[in-house]
Amino acid sequence: MSSKRIALDVMGGDNAPGAILDGALAACDPASENPLTPSRILLVGDEAVLRPALAERNAPEGFEILHAPSVIGMDEKPAVALRSKRDASIPVATGAVKQGLAGALVGMGNTGAMVGCATVVLGTLPGVRRPGIAVTLRLSDTPLTLLDMGANIAPHAGDLMQYGVMGATLQRDCMGVENPRVGLLNIGEEKAKGTDLLKQAGELLESTDLPFVGNVEGGDLFTGAVDVVVTDGFTGNVVLKLLEGFAGFMLGQVMRELAGHGADWAPTALAKLKKNIDYAEYGGALLLGVDGVVIIGHGRSDATAVANALRVAATALDVGVNRHIVTGLANVPATDSAAG
Amino acid sequence: MSSKRIALDVMGGDNAPGAILDGALAACDPASENPLTPSRILLVGDEAVLRPALAERNAPEGFEILHAPSVIGMDEKPAVALRSKRDASIPVATGAVKQGLAGALVGMGNTGAMVGCATVVLGTLPGVRRPGIAVTLRLSDTPLTLLDMGANIAPHAGDLMQYGVMGATLQRDCMGVENPRVGLLNIGEEKAKGTDLLKQAGELLESTDLPFVGNVEGGDLFTGAVDVVVTDGFTGNVVLKLLEGFAGFMLGQVMRELAGHGADWAPTALAKLKKNIDYAEYGGALLLGVDGVVIIGHGRSDATAVANALRVAATALDVGVNRHIVTGLANVPATDSAAG
Repeated sequence: MSSKRIALDVMGGDNAPGAILDGALAACDPASENPLTPSRILLVGDEAVLRPALAERNAPEGFEILHAPSVIGMDEKPAVALRSKRDASIPVATGAVKQGLAGALVGMGNTGAMVGCATVVLGTLPGVRRPGIAVTLRLSDTPLTLLDMGANIAPHAGDLMQYGVMGATLQRDCMGVENPRVGLLNIGEEKAKGTDLLKQAGELLESTDLPFVGNVEGGDLFTGAVDVVVTDGFTGNVVLKLLEGFAGFMLGQVMRELAGHGADWAPTALAKLKKNIDYAEYGGALLLGVDGVVIIGHGRSDATAVANALRVAATALDVGVNRHIVTGLANVPATDSAAG
Repeated sequence: MSSKRIALDVMGGDNAPGAILDGALAACDPASENPLTPSRILLVGDEAVLRPALAERNAPEGFEILHAPSVIGMDEKPAVALRSKRDASIPVATGAVKQGLAGALVGMGNTGAMVGCATVVLGTLPGVRRPGIAVTLRLSDTPLTLLDMGANIAPHAGDLMQYGVMGATLQRDCMGVENPRVGLLNIGEEKAKGTDLLKQAGELLESTDLPFVGNVEGGDLFTGAVDVVVTDGFTGNVVLKLLEGFAGFMLGQVMRELAGHGADWAPTALAKLKKNIDYAEYGGALLLGVDGVVIIGHGRSDATAVANALRVAATALDVGVNRHIVTGLANVPATDSAAG
């Protein structure tokens, strides 16, 4: 039985450590829905900073601190930083999961360092060649999970098939979608469309018992026609940044347009729209395919986003999402996963 | 001296032939800015349909009709249709350009058929291996040209460099942007980011005398930081369809949010926002790199969009955009263009 604790990197992210600690406290707030107990969260960071910060916040008893004296900056090169800063919060928190002190890792720091460290230290689940980053958005009435969002920019067809299995498992286990429909992001709905990689991936996905709807296009993200969208990490990352930029742009344009009409209520009415497409609000991104629950929050996460990420991590541990992923992957055609 | 006439496929598109003819008339309306003369437009389509339709509209004298009795449908497979329907409006209009009866081709029909037919019949400009589709949007105060939007889903690095040259020429010649800045769509700004293809393309673009700003990310499309964004046809097509879907989604959400506030003026105020990101409004997509001016309008183009496409075609012919592209390509490193 693996640990149900969550190692939280308190030092990573644009608003660390303040917003991260506030998020941990918010997740444990007895007045909130499904509050966590403080003992479930392992705070990883500089003890000299965290002790007074906890006292200042009148934090409840039960939080444990795992000391990590240094920090990997948001702009540091991951490979270099991981070699030179073994005592930084990301490697220390990841080590805590490896040693079984925790079952999940939540961090808002350097994405490359988190992906690299988690992949190398925790290793991949049986049969997985390359982990993928899954992000869940609310673009229609139901949540939509997109993967990979940038961990694997040159995937094999088998990786894409596995992302379909992993994304569907996440949707079912953590988002409560009963029979998640999986689509492959392409430039047309016909089977003959797209690159050779996508044609192969489409055939592999069809051979699984997933509810695979075939190719979907960019516009299908907004129609509720699909629950999981599989794509390579390059396209996924472009899409994610485009959505983020476009949402801000559109709302800015709308506000400018409305300004002339004395619509003072508009900013409040529209603020929640921005949240709907902000994946940070929904608990960040999950690195799927590694042996542990790993959540990579957006660097600019505030306390609410951190609390949501902790809740998603708790749910993923409680339902045993990785156990279900391993079962799911065992039921699909073997890939070239053994190779590095 | 090549012809300054524009062959217009009157039979292609969701609203053909009515909206296409209306567009031709609108472009020649003496009350409009820079009206075209009817003799400049060669209407390609079924004479038995077009003659009465022109009469019904009290069309001015001067329009000439080039008879093409059949039509390639929007959903027909391009290769099959082009082989079996040699008398369809797309091949007949393209043939008119090849024979020098016209210098430009404008159509709102089957995109694949237009790209395939234009590439094979007209051939590519000297040094060009694969043409690319350029689309111009208004996402900030200045126009933004994106290419390739789907003609070349597996480009070589040299193709991407050429798209930079062609896109910059289009911006300068047809959009009036004096010193257009070119960026390469990637998943990070650092040179080491992205696939091997993008690293090579970045080096090639840097070796040109273009104002190359390096890698740009999805969010940079909205900041006005760049005038031309180069990408492969797969990513470009996903991006274009995503923008289209997202704009409709966001405005729908905004309208729903505003509905509760009795803001009856909102639909009108917001309608023009949708136009700003609608490339059909700006004259459609240009197939750059073929020996002729080829504009592929959106299938759902209305008369305004058709008129705009005709105006862009006229400008491209008047300024000699292809002559400038040939000069520009002669000044950059040779690519593997000679190969097929």
